[in-house]
Amino acid sequence: MSVNRGKVVIIGTSNVGSAVLNKITDFQLASEIALIDLDMDRARGEALDTSHAMSSPYSTNIKVHTGTYEDCRDAAFIVITAGPSILPGETPDRLKLASTNTKIMRSIFSEIVKYTKEAMIIMITNPLDVATYVVSTEFDYPREKILGTGTMLETYRFRYILAEHYDMDPKNIHGYVLGEHGNDAFVAWSTVNCAGLGIDHLDEYFHFKNKLSRKEVEQGLIQTAYDVINLKGFTNTGIAMVACRFIKAILYNEHTILPCAAVMNGEYGMRDVALSIPRMISQDGIVRSLEVHLPEDEMEKLVRAQKSVRAALDGAGVK
Amino acid sequence: MSVNRGKVVIIGTSNVGSAVLNKITDFQLASEIALIDLDMDRARGEALDTSHAMSSPYSTNIKVHTGTYEDCRDAAFIVITAGPSILPGETPDRLKLASTNTKIMRSIFSEIVKYTKEAMIIMITNPLDVATYVVSTEFDYPREKILGTGTMLETYRFRYILAEHYDMDPKNIHGYVLGEHGNDAFVAWSTVNCAGLGIDHLDEYFHFKNKLSRKEVEQGLIQTAYDVINLKGFTNTGIAMVACRFIKAILYNEHTILPCAAVMNGEYGMRDVALSIPRMISQDGIVRSLEVHLPEDEMEKLVRAQKSVRAALDGAGVK
Amino acid sequence: MSVNRGKVVIIGTSNVGSAVLNKITDFQLASEIALIDLDMDRARGEALDTSHAMSSPYSTNIKVHTGTYEDCRDAAFIVITAGPSILPGETPDRLKLASTNTKIMRSIFSEIVKYTKEAMIIMITNPLDVATYVVSTEFDYPREKILGTGTMLETYRFRYILAEHYDMDPKNIHGYVLGEHGNDAFVAWSTVNCAGLGIDHLDEYFHFKNKLSRKEVEQGLIQTAYDVINLKGFTNTGIAMVACRFIKAILYNEHTILPCAAVMNGEYGMRDVALSIPRMISQDGIVRSLEVHLPEDEMEKLVRAQKSVRAALDGAGVK
Amino acid sequence: MSVNRGKVVIIGTSNVGSAVLNKITDFQLASEIALIDLDMDRARGEALDTSHAMSSPYSTNIKVHTGTYEDCRDAAFIVITAGPSILPGETPDRLKLASTNTKIMRSIFSEIVKYTKEAMIIMITNPLDVATYVVSTEFDYPREKILGTGTMLETYRFRYILAEHYDMDPKNIHGYVLGEHGNDAFVAWSTVNCAGLGIDHLDEYFHFKNKLSRKEVEQGLIQTAYDVINLKGFTNTGIAMVACRFIKAILYNEHTILPCAAVMNGEYGMRDVALSIPRMISQDGIVRSLEVHLPEDEMEKLVRAQKSVRAALDGAGVK
Repeated sequence: MSVNRGKVVIIGTSNVGSAVLNKITDFQLASEIALIDLDMDRARGEALDTSHAMSSPYSTNIKVHTGTYEDCRDAAFIVITAGPSILPGETPDRLKLASTNTKIMRSIFSEIVKYTKEAMIIMITNPLDVATYVVSTEFDYPREKILGTGTMLETYRFRYILAEHYDMDPKNIHGYVLGEHGNDAFVAWSTVNCAGLGIDHLDEYFHFKNKLSRKEVEQGLIQTAYDVINLKGFTNTGIAMVACRFIKAILYNEHTILPCAAVMNGEYGMRDVALSIPRMISQDGIVRSLEVHLPEDEMEKLVRAQKSVRAALDGAGVK
Repeated sequence: MSVNRGKVVIIGTSNVGSAVLNKITDFQLASEIALIDLDMDRARGEALDTSHAMSSPYSTNIKVHTGTYEDCRDAAFIVITAGPSILPGETPDRLKLASTNTKIMRSIFSEIVKYTKEAMIIMITNPLDVATYVVSTEFDYPREKILGTGTMLETYRFRYILAEHYDMDPKNIHGYVLGEHGNDAFVAWSTVNCAGLGIDHLDEYFHFKNKLSRKEVEQGLIQTAYDVINLKGFTNTGIAMVACRFIKAILYNEHTILPCAAVMNGEYGMRDVALSIPRMISQDGIVRSLEVHLPEDEMEKLVRAQKSVRAALDGAGVK
Repeated sequence: MSVNRGKVVIIGTSNVGSAVLNKITDFQLASEIALIDLDMDRARGEALDTSHAMSSPYSTNIKVHTGTYEDCRDAAFIVITAGPSILPGETPDRLKLASTNTKIMRSIFSEIVKYTKEAMIIMITNPLDVATYVVSTEFDYPREKILGTGTMLETYRFRYILAEHYDMDPKNIHGYVLGEHGNDAFVAWSTVNCAGLGIDHLDEYFHFKNKLSRKEVEQGLIQTAYDVINLKGFTNTGIAMVACRFIKAILYNEHTILPCAAVMNGEYGMRDVALSIPRMISQDGIVRSLEVHLPEDEMEKLVRAQKSVRAALDGAGVK
Repeated sequence: MSVNRGKVVIIGTSNVGSAVLNKITDFQLASEIALIDLDMDRARGEALDTSHAMSSPYSTNIKVHTGTYEDCRDAAFIVITAGPSILPGETPDRLKLASTNTKIMRSIFSEIVKYTKEAMIIMITNPLDVATYVVSTEFDYPREKILGTGTMLETYRFRYILAEHYDMDPKNIHGYVLGEHGNDAFVAWSTVNCAGLGIDHLDEYFHFKNKLSRKEVEQGLIQTAYDVINLKGFTNTGIAMVACRFIKAILYNEHTILPCAAVMNGEYGMRDVALSIPRMISQDGIVRSLEVHLPEDEMEKLVRAQKSVRAALDGAGVK
């Protein structure tokens, strides 16, 4: 059976999964969406509520329904959001979460590979790099088709924070947060550029007296994730937009360069983890990984991220 | 201060309010959104999470922030979603809900009128017709600018149900559910038309053996709302799309005819309630209410809806 | 080679073809567009100008390039706009146009069938019904995949005229213009419905003193096409939107009912012509034709349209 | 009368004006559009053809009509495209074009200022910098509200050319073409950055053997404009997208940094011309001009552009 370019399967339909569902329908990125959840009631409720919205004259008639893993057979995209999350106020026990979600990922992927090796896999479940590594290395699935959302979310947050500082459009901020999705994400300042004006003279161009503090930006970047969790109980809007960014890049064969997580294939001499570095995305998935020159201090941070992810993998018993 | 055509204030940012926020940003229907909630943490969390999504290259740089009632001063739209809702499994005590939410509406509107009589008010809080009646009659605010979402949601659900039956695009289904938003909503079959083919010969055109059962459709229409609540715990996607439909009709001055709730102004001899009938919407709000001919059985249902809303108003002590 | 769901081939890139190109890119209905024209310079110029627009942050990176018929091999859609058109001030010599364009259609289709029987064909070249009939009957191509835009354009014009009369959103006007695309198109008043309010009581609902004149509407419908041609020299915006309406219905598998032209397959006892009647459109093309009950006067007009198209076919020597 | 945020006036409805009209309706950037042209037939034809397209269910009901300068009274945007253009094969006599179009601009602006000083003016007529200078300095109109599209178009073309070279999304290319809109536009290589990877190591990152030739890119940038004109007879799609980029930045109050033309106000010591440099755009128009550090060779090119524009102004007798 050939791949239906318009079919998306979403696995996990709680806060994140339902946000992904909503953005995909709002942006008309599918003609059919199948929802899978252990709690099929929740999935049924989301399918029904979303379907009611399809009566709007401005909506395309996207078919949203509950499904089974058989729906993966002709899916173009499978978005994996299942698994427990970090809760408000929690000091996340990363190792425990890694261990639990690793098992869930194996269970889900064992089902998926029965039906397809064609679909693009969009990984969202945390710890993201652990989950991406496990499904990429333990299953015979084309690696270029497994895309961990990774530090794209941190990159969006970073752009927002810097844009806020200068009161400008975040689309003007270029450059990446790389490394681990989580506490060992780091701003690759060597890649940062604001509106083609660089980064060093911005305060001068904007006649700012207070110099931009890179340290404050870096702290804000990590803090803002916990702020969202503590304030509203979970994060979902930002990550749903990130998922749609990747889907659009693939659907339109954009050949766009975005930071995302995949198993390292010798870049920077690393192979034993998944990490986020800039990669080019097309309809075939990840078509190129860019081993960009990093200055020494950023290289150190990348190594720290590697160690952090490897430690979590080890803790979860993953080779 | 003049009205900022791009500013929306959302009052209440739990499930419904945050869904409205998301659809407004996804459809780019505002340039600035202020969030007000008794639980300002929740509002802050939503503002932050949504702002992170604005870094996407496809997003306009919509400013999303928490606010106060002063933000109403230059708002183009104020969407009211605040107040307790019906909970899963609950037999809704309408009178109690009416009484509680009436007080909340008065409190909110007392604040709004301090700052504006210009903004279009989109009412979502339930019991919708009670809430719409209270704010329209107890405050000196232009009535054509108070728009209760009303049976537009039931109308979308009806179109979905009928479209599912014939496996067709719900955009092909025309006609309205009218009356009360809630249990005394009724399908105005006399207005229903499928793709210009009428409604009576559809089974024949589609070579269906089982005749369409109007009774089943009507029951399904009421049941589907409780299904969503019981399955996912609340409804929000459908109603958020409804809110955006009205915002778009007003923003683009569409002069489109949609069912919505407003205080009856002598149509069908009624004045003491708010109910949904077809009304024309433009940039000035409700510019025309259409007292369409209803056959006797539908007229009876409209009267029943009137009595139901009046009873709820009486129960809540509203004149 | 499998069908690339995102690839469109446009044959003919003058006024209509370039308008179709623009709407497809604006609405992001493709990831790749190949342009074919006898005047390859024109095609190259359009490809280049459109590509420059793709640098906008809001644009997906759609690849627009000149092509050859080999591009049809993996195309999802082929839009045929080639051939001479009616010129301003011209009394169109339909038979001559039929004869000329019939030859062009044969030449184009002989090329297409070398490479695909999978693509959806969107016919725009006039005389539309003649062109649709010729390619459908003279080539071994799945008929449900050949879709003549037909009276969808007249239907849009009709809705605009009626909406103007009542100063309302044309999305409120339902019902069809059927028959021939051209002078023997006719308003099927039996299918017309305005916002679920029917059509007979509209003047009353709107408190209009002047009764709607159906005759004036019918005359305006035919006249408005010539007005556009005489005023700006050609028509292209309306028809480009019509083409996109069909592409969207197919791309999203909408199962929507639209009037469009195809070879009659016994509906109303007709087989020797292509005509527009309501048909259901899905990802497989035309999945159902609806032989709706027409009152006697409309049936007469359908027969007149049949005779008109048959005469043009006979004149062009088409069996 | 207050400004209607949704109203756009387009002056000049031939190739460029009609392309702007189409993109504005496709992107739903207005609720009303008035068309003004010396050839009112052309304007009427465009209004009619576009209005027919508004019947699509996916279209908002944008009112498109012919107008007079009185329509400027409540307009939010006035887009000026009027005046003769460069013709295919022509060696453009810039001085003659400057002289002719200067008179046309004065005539148009004399009318506009009778009705408004509130609307944002989007200048497209060539020679763009001359036209922008004339209307900005000879009329008492807020200068921050006059925005010449300038080298934004060359910037889009540059991004496309560089993106083509590396087969990547042009959204990945940042940096500007500055100076004069026309032959003395220059690539400000010091501002160019590709996907946060800089520009110097790109060939290496992409494993390219042929080094990128800046000279070839610069020549291609100028040549591609003439190519489009010679191939299709005019340019319109790219510039229409540029106009919409500015409209969107203003409508959504984006505070985005884009290169655009305005009278120099002492930046780089220049005051006697209009030129394109990076400027921040919000709902108030140009809120900030950025005098970015340019290396010596780029500074020389900016001076050359200044001299070129000043010479054209002198030739047209403009102080």
